[in-house]
Amino acid sequence: MIQQYTEADRKRLSELKELVFKSGFADIGFIDSMGRPSIRRVFCTWHRGLKAHLISTNTSSLHVQELMKNEKACLYFENSSQFKGLCLSGKVIVHHEPEYKELLWEEGNEKYYPQGVTDEDYCVLEFVADSGRYYMSLGKGDLTAEELEDGATEFKQYQA
Amino acid sequence: MIQQYTEADRKRLSELKELVFKSGFADIGFIDSMGRPSIRRVFCTWHRGLKAHLISTNTSSLHVQELMKNEKACLYFENSSQFKGLCLSGKVIVHHEPEYKELLWEEGNEKYYPQGVTDEDYCVLEFVADSGRYYMSLGKGDLTAEELEDGATEFKQYQA
Repeated sequence: MIQQYTEADRKRLSELKELVFKSGFADIGFIDSMGRPSIRRVFCTWHRGLKAHLISTNTSSLHVQELMKNEKACLYFENSSQFKGLCLSGKVIVHHEPEYKELLWEEGNEKYYPQGVTDEDYCVLEFVADSGRYYMSLGKGDLTAEELEDGATEFKQYQA
Repeated sequence: MIQQYTEADRKRLSELKELVFKSGFADIGFIDSMGRPSIRRVFCTWHRGLKAHLISTNTSSLHVQELMKNEKACLYFENSSQFKGLCLSGKVIVHHEPEYKELLWEEGNEKYYPQGVTDEDYCVLEFVADSGRYYMSLGKGDLTAEELEDGATEFKQYQA
């Protein structure tokens, strides 16, 4: 089904993409094994439109351990000075496959992962959104499935 | 029981208080009625040490409606440029009592709450922490109950 975008829809979608692609960071929300919500700040520069996002991290870290038990997560992008926020809801897949680990590996990462790109403590989280709620000065609302998929063809790295 | 603080403990506690008191904003994490974690950015300038925090907000907003059904919440303070983060875990109490609403009322709030300080859509969230996990360049760890209560005598407003 093709969605008919109004000019306001297109402007909002473009602003939300700019918020996400230029953020550099995101807050990931998860539920710990005691059923409590928790948040961590993560680097997040790899995006497939608004639909999916990659995050390199330590397998041993608490949030990865909890996400392996409960995949439900949210990813929040915000710009307080512009009063913009986007809360994506979805799930996290923990990747140990070389194709993901090689894609996100950067020079200097040996500092965090002494064994290099095959270090077992190095993994890549893929967050996949199934819905999204935005807060902007122009108003708040929910993203449609079409908006989430808009331009979401492949993962690309963006400069914050 | 009196905790014996080392100099490093005192320095860390002081840095975490500065992070919280100068932040101006926080991210509140909650669980929605579908069991999904969710995050909202909120103004947060009223603190009772690291233990409790007040947030003025709209009763009708989605996160308040969800927090009335499930009080479990977290409050996350961060400074990305300094690589500091503090995730407090606890619960939220929704206050409609005049003493809370009057304490946080500010000139110009009529813009959001046309009925003034008694507007039913105006309420104050009190977040009370029972644990906290910090992430700093010096290391990560958990706050003790004594650290959470340190200097937490009364609510004060801080300038970000």
